[in-house]
Amino acid sequence: MAAVLRVDLPDTAYEIAIAPQNLDTIGTQMAGLNLGKKVLLISNPEIEQFYGDRVRDALSTAGFNVATHLIPAGEEYKTLASIEQVYDAALAHRLERSSTMVALGGGVIGDMTGFAAATWLRGINFVQAPTSLLAMVDASVGGKTGVNHPQGKNLIGAFYQPKLVLIDPTVLATLPPREFRAGMAEVIKYGVIWDADLFAQLEAAEGLSSYETIDSQLLETILVRSCQAKAAVVSQDEKEAGLRAILNYGHTLGHAVESLTQYRLVNHGEAVAIGMVAAGQLAAQLDLWTTAEAERQDKLITQTGLPTQIPGQLAVAEIVDTLQTDKKVKAGKVQFILPTTLGQVKITDQVPAEVLAGVIQNCQVC
Amino acid sequence: MAAVLRVDLPDTAYEIAIAPQNLDTIGTQMAGLNLGKKVLLISNPEIEQFYGDRVRDALSTAGFNVATHLIPAGEEYKTLASIEQVYDAALAHRLERSSTMVALGGGVIGDMTGFAAATWLRGINFVQAPTSLLAMVDASVGGKTGVNHPQGKNLIGAFYQPKLVLIDPTVLATLPPREFRAGMAEVIKYGVIWDADLFAQLEAAEGLSSYETIDSQLLETILVRSCQAKAAVVSQDEKEAGLRAILNYGHTLGHAVESLTQYRLVNHGEAVAIGMVAAGQLAAQLDLWTTAEAERQDKLITQTGLPTQIPGQLAVAEIVDTLQTDKKVKAGKVQFILPTTLGQVKITDQVPAEVLAGVIQNCQVC
Repeated sequence: MAAVLRVDLPDTAYEIAIAPQNLDTIGTQMAGLNLGKKVLLISNPEIEQFYGDRVRDALSTAGFNVATHLIPAGEEYKTLASIEQVYDAALAHRLERSSTMVALGGGVIGDMTGFAAATWLRGINFVQAPTSLLAMVDASVGGKTGVNHPQGKNLIGAFYQPKLVLIDPTVLATLPPREFRAGMAEVIKYGVIWDADLFAQLEAAEGLSSYETIDSQLLETILVRSCQAKAAVVSQDEKEAGLRAILNYGHTLGHAVESLTQYRLVNHGEAVAIGMVAAGQLAAQLDLWTTAEAERQDKLITQTGLPTQIPGQLAVAEIVDTLQTDKKVKAGKVQFILPTTLGQVKITDQVPAEVLAGVIQNCQVC
Repeated sequence: MAAVLRVDLPDTAYEIAIAPQNLDTIGTQMAGLNLGKKVLLISNPEIEQFYGDRVRDALSTAGFNVATHLIPAGEEYKTLASIEQVYDAALAHRLERSSTMVALGGGVIGDMTGFAAATWLRGINFVQAPTSLLAMVDASVGGKTGVNHPQGKNLIGAFYQPKLVLIDPTVLATLPPREFRAGMAEVIKYGVIWDADLFAQLEAAEGLSSYETIDSQLLETILVRSCQAKAAVVSQDEKEAGLRAILNYGHTLGHAVESLTQYRLVNHGEAVAIGMVAAGQLAAQLDLWTTAEAERQDKLITQTGLPTQIPGQLAVAEIVDTLQTDKKVKAGKVQFILPTTLGQVKITDQVPAEVLAGVIQNCQVC
């Protein structure tokens, strides 16, 4: 079983290759892309221990000259200071403009590697080898790269496309179950915003909460359909002029919750799950979405083992204030992505302050 | 007298507006570009004292909401640490994706503002209002943005295009003469690599070494022809896949000299002048260029009041080693841009090590 999807953009095009044991062919796949010989492999210590040798072997056998740079795991290392260390490693390995940075890891590694590649020598090649479900279905596709600012997530970054995204589902065997569920939050998102059939398949399935329990055929379907949804949206709107914003469903409030809890209490997927529940309630209260469908969404989120409540210690006012610093703010108004029916959403900045405050409060006790 | 040049790129297009007193119309010119209302004006304290009020007035009158951020003058502040302070200012002024950073200053301010704009919220608008001759004829056109790494100039950066380049020649009245001459180095470069007629006009002119002595008509010609040359090259090769590299004439060795003297002994234009003299000698020794034309180049450089010698304290070996870290290195080979006739150059990595070492040594005593 293998699938290859193609992402076509105005400036560039690249493939998303999905197949079990793909990691062992990364060298031969990259060899076909007309890249320079030097590679800087970027990972974190945990992932590197599992897969570093396999990837280095595959690259070396294909003729690449590989150096490795490790960044400690965790969102708290997604900083400009970590990028400076990548620059130092790039300099030490004497990377050239034709060289390639390979991201082997989750979304944090992918986002940082992409940003470092985008800004070293004004842009060198990079390849994504995502090892978390979240990175496979979301972060590795679409070219958003960046790091956090102390005041907000991903405020520093660039749009920069990889030369290849290489997905090997079998690496999910070493992913902690909580991280697996975090990725499922983004999968559910695609069901709600784009692919009602995917949503229905998830509703009908069992064992969604871990790699051990999920059906392996369904997992491949999930990977392909999620990447297809993302690629379709990104191809139409690379730089988020309009349509692409729908991918932020659940993220507006999610980012605020992550940021206010210093990225420690909930992970990104959990924050998105919480944000989707709140967005669903907003949509229902504004009569954009039926309560019945909003409840089906919440049930699927719960059944996947994801949280639905905003942490109780956050004050409504501080959440609202943090929303104002979101990248999606336009002319001072916060943009929300709200469902209208399963598989479809609309973008609106017409959310009355009292409705927003009410939903936030309700989501803290619900 | 006014000129408007258009730069057409695959993804975008923008204008270079050249006219005396242009600073007073920056607000109305920007108002026609469909930008958001928020502007962060970025400058250094010296420039801001001369022109800050005029620019802010022009912007405010046109309806923009302006905040100002100052960076101390000098190449030694062209660092990622300075960019972090720009990010903080962007956050404090709550810039949005539709907002604009305006660079009012020389090349350092322009490069840093462009990089900050390229990487804040994954890219916001920016406008160049260059106040040095060097920035007018070189840095402000073409979309190269970035900062220095402790180990090398401009190693960190991005290709990112401005929405407008606004050139007001009258601001050169406050530019120190040494800086004026530095800009003339880039002008001479365009003569050698692209525009033999411009070279001849410069050879025939007097008073090239300062704003006070140069003919104002010739100055406008210089601005227009230099920007035309740069725009023509950049339009054909935005990301430096090939042709654009010719703009680096004199820069390969120039960067090494700047970097090894910690950007303190010679300024960028002086380094380029020194680099052009060395490149001319390389070209002559390799029988690519006539000695007579190389000497005409050196004479024009001298007559403009620019230096021609590599600082004597640098060892040949350390210069050669520094060349290896240059961005233009490909497959370990240093690329040189060498003239073949006035107005034309070729790109080559076929420079024997002993010829290079000999020329470097010769340029230290010549």
